Amino acid sequence: MSKIASLVPESLKASKPSLIRVLNNKYGSDPEVVNLTVGEPDFKTADHVKLAAIKSILDDHTHYPHNWGTPGLRSAISEYLADDLDLHYDPEGEIFVTEGASGAISTIIAGLCQPGDVVLIPCPAYTLYRINAELRDAKAVELETAEPDFKVTPELLKKALDKYGEKVKVLVLNYPVNPTGVTYTPDEVRALADLLKNYNVAILDDEIYADLLYEGEHLPMAKLLPDQTLYVSGVSKNAAMTGWRVGYICGPHDVLGALAKVHQAAISTNATMNMDAAEEALRHGKADTAQMKAEYDRRRQFLMTAMDKIGFHYTKPMGAFYLWVKIPDSFDGDSMAYAEHLAEKAKVAIVPAAAFTKLPVRYFRISYAASMEKLKRAVDGLAKVFAEDGSFYD
Amino acid sequence: MSKIASLVPESLKASKPSLIRVLNNKYGSDPEVVNLTVGEPDFKTADHVKLAAIKSILDDHTHYPHNWGTPGLRSAISEYLADDLDLHYDPEGEIFVTEGASGAISTIIAGLCQPGDVVLIPCPAYTLYRINAELRDAKAVELETAEPDFKVTPELLKKALDKYGEKVKVLVLNYPVNPTGVTYTPDEVRALADLLKNYNVAILDDEIYADLLYEGEHLPMAKLLPDQTLYVSGVSKNAAMTGWRVGYICGPHDVLGALAKVHQAAISTNATMNMDAAEEALRHGKADTAQMKAEYDRRRQFLMTAMDKIGFHYTKPMGAFYLWVKIPDSFDGDSMAYAEHLAEKAKVAIVPAAAFTKLPVRYFRISYAASMEKLKRAVDGLAKVFAEDGSFYD
Repeated sequence: MSKIASLVPESLKASKPSLIRVLNNKYGSDPEVVNLTVGEPDFKTADHVKLAAIKSILDDHTHYPHNWGTPGLRSAISEYLADDLDLHYDPEGEIFVTEGASGAISTIIAGLCQPGDVVLIPCPAYTLYRINAELRDAKAVELETAEPDFKVTPELLKKALDKYGEKVKVLVLNYPVNPTGVTYTPDEVRALADLLKNYNVAILDDEIYADLLYEGEHLPMAKLLPDQTLYVSGVSKNAAMTGWRVGYICGPHDVLGALAKVHQAAISTNATMNMDAAEEALRHGKADTAQMKAEYDRRRQFLMTAMDKIGFHYTKPMGAFYLWVKIPDSFDGDSMAYAEHLAEKAKVAIVPAAAFTKLPVRYFRISYAASMEKLKRAVDGLAKVFAEDGSFYD
Repeated sequence: MSKIASLVPESLKASKPSLIRVLNNKYGSDPEVVNLTVGEPDFKTADHVKLAAIKSILDDHTHYPHNWGTPGLRSAISEYLADDLDLHYDPEGEIFVTEGASGAISTIIAGLCQPGDVVLIPCPAYTLYRINAELRDAKAVELETAEPDFKVTPELLKKALDKYGEKVKVLVLNYPVNPTGVTYTPDEVRALADLLKNYNVAILDDEIYADLLYEGEHLPMAKLLPDQTLYVSGVSKNAAMTGWRVGYICGPHDVLGALAKVHQAAISTNATMNMDAAEEALRHGKADTAQMKAEYDRRRQFLMTAMDKIGFHYTKPMGAFYLWVKIPDSFDGDSMAYAEHLAEKAKVAIVPAAAFTKLPVRYFRISYAASMEKLKRAVDGLAKVFAEDGSFYD
């Protein structure tokens, strides 16, 4: 133990790294195992986006950009959101660029919460919300949603809002939902908005998968409650740009001004050439997204058909690139045990529900941001194990 | 005011943006004013580094990298530090890559401090240390150093360490020093180490300017107290790569493991192609650094000669690219007033001491990371105003 190891706060020592990363590290390099853990597009970034980055570098855009992000990218975000989702934000003061959507999430939670405050998180959910609340010494309150679609209802939300009162600073909404693949219908969004407008709580509205919706209609919460919503998105998922690290927050000018200070203190600014690449993706990348989306949809339908045939129960996926599968009742163990079982016997690595909630939910997530060839191998393995186990649901 | 504006904590509302950025925004676009505010190399990133980034993009390194940074960059950092400063860190577990040195500073302070803890900051100092302490609800204690070289002494440090006791989690050291351009001699570093080894405090050892030392010898604190030092650096200054946002932390394995969780929660990872570029800079960029350093030195000597001739007093600059100039006693006003005065009358934008300390220090910083042509214009303006003012020192 190093001399200063004792300076690490207990809460940080106890903080667990993301189980997704742990599993990815464990199975990512095993050629025998089909790795369906990571929610990362298997597509490459489009050539015209890569060329924009190269042009930026050749043009010596290698200096500090504006702390809020390049004016070009901010204006591209503004135009993209207006065109795509009828959302209207002023590039001067209502949009700032973050280091991936992760940077947006951490900035909002660190900025608005003080120790002891509450962040409400409908679960299952992406782990970063909880981790950031805990690192800020705030309380991450998981809202226990119900099978089969695991969506938060106004009733459930109202109970939590009333219970924690003014301590609640942030409510996390994320749809289409990672890990379940479900989404909220416009009516459901309206019903939540009708409730939320009565509470002074900031909505961390993570719509990073908004462009990957295969069925139904997407109504952004930011459209209904612009004055209390912090709209979070980025180019990682819709433009296959995870490695470029460009996300953004849009919202009310006065709150963004405060949050920009938090982001600036954390990392000063994003990288310049990466923002130039993201600008190109937003301005001219719709066809790329459409093409990837068609392929994801093909995989989604393949997986549903295959799971139906095998006998697995699952939640009907509407968006993102995840399938949320129920663990057979016949299996005697929790979701982590089932994940280990599948890795060992089916040679398929998936993410157990334990990665997304502290509650004992018996589901697992398949990421279909993976090639058809991999998905076919995975399905074969899952079919074999399902049968060998004599799996059944009560 | 937006509905959720009241959710912004008072401490965040009160947090001031960096005065450097404010002045840069104010004078950066005024063609009449010579802008010497920003500490950013005026050089472009070297061609071979740009080509490495382009190759990385063409090779489709557009996916998530390892959270600690690419193995290639971590190994390049390890080899660079061994060769350059005789510092020895294992790429596996003792080095992780951050979003610029800013990301290193925020990660260390956010990770090791809890509300009420103390960060000791010898002042004048770069503002980001104080801002990050305040955002963590820790107390930023400025150590008041003395003219003319503004270096912290063991006596001054001991008084503060004893006064704040176990509350002190982090001591900031930064040398060569921004904003004064001075540095600590090996004997001075040894004397500080002799004291610090008796205290359980982490040393945030920001040596981002280590490669830009024009006189004297650089002894890293990390060499003397590896077990309690978190060595912070990056490629922004020595490789003219500010816009790429690549920094790093080296230190004891157990503390780094905890800090990596904080950085991961904040931004997940750095961008992949930017790390590939930084790897090239560290592996093959020594000649670039040497060339830029020679040019900075030429400017340093030009400025010293010019200031001597005008009659300005200044602290002798040894490293980085800053000249720390004393405001004439004849001027009736604080450092901010003098900065405004120079901008208006001399058409030169510099950064007043007020940006680097809350104490009433009557100095200003000139950044000579600017072309000789600019520096000549600036000197002419300063000479004119110095004379017109009838400036003198008591």
